[in-house]
Amino acid sequence: MRYVSFPLGHHWIVDLHGCPADLLDDHELIRHRLRETTERFGLTLLEIVSNRFEPQGVTVVGLLAESHISIHTWPEHCYAAVDIFTCGADGNLKAACEFIARSLLAQRTTVLRLNRGVMTIDGRCGMTSEAVTLDEP
Amino acid sequence: MRYVSFPLGHHWIVDLHGCPADLLDDHELIRHRLRETTERFGLTLLEIVSNRFEPQGVTVVGLLAESHISIHTWPEHCYAAVDIFTCGADGNLKAACEFIARSLLAQRTTVLRLNRGVMTIDGRCGMTSEAVTLDEP
Repeated sequence: MRYVSFPLGHHWIVDLHGCPADLLDDHELIRHRLRETTERFGLTLLEIVSNRFEPQGVTVVGLLAESHISIHTWPEHCYAAVDIFTCGADGNLKAACEFIARSLLAQRTTVLRLNRGVMTIDGRCGMTSEAVTLDEP
Repeated sequence: MRYVSFPLGHHWIVDLHGCPADLLDDHELIRHRLRETTERFGLTLLEIVSNRFEPQGVTVVGLLAESHISIHTWPEHCYAAVDIFTCGADGNLKAACEFIARSLLAQRTTVLRLNRGVMTIDGRCGMTSEAVTLDEP
């Protein structure tokens, strides 16, 4: 596929396995990590909303000027699901994902990088994806 | 890959092209469509946050008991980026995506269905993806 000036958005999908359960169940900590990620990597956090579930689990979503960021946790499986969606350049997103993985002490990570809002030169629309390997902590 | 009882989450990634620009720039309408989607398809909306950008564009994110839903719009490109992420079954998600596509009068759609938090039977972690074709309006 040949592209014109798109993609309009970059969407990084991150699965974190092997994180300590108590850390993933810490509502304030997860909120703090999300906020810290936006501050360190130049994302503009407009609003943050979150919930802690019973008996466990935390979900935090940040509304960004660039789109959104989310962290959802399953402490019972030592698993967290993260995504960061931004318009514009995605130069910082790999480092941002690595920061979140490190800060949640993930043992294994799986990352998919999506190019959203892609338009080919012949007018077709599409979406491209590629697996990304994060640097070790 | 052989799986155990995972995936933990279902993440549907939806690109909508060819939507009317004025519709995509209508802040209240986009909020309403997101809320309506949750009501129609059994998703529990805990909180909704949104922003309208200057000179154009709307971003709306809903915090769900099941995870999150977002709609980001680029009226200047007649493009909207949608995602719905839920834990549990994803039986309703295709219909939910079709509802959003229809309600925003999308001419072309691209959909990627991700299985998140997958664990293989031999203990490796992974993520699976498949392209999905939505039914025509």
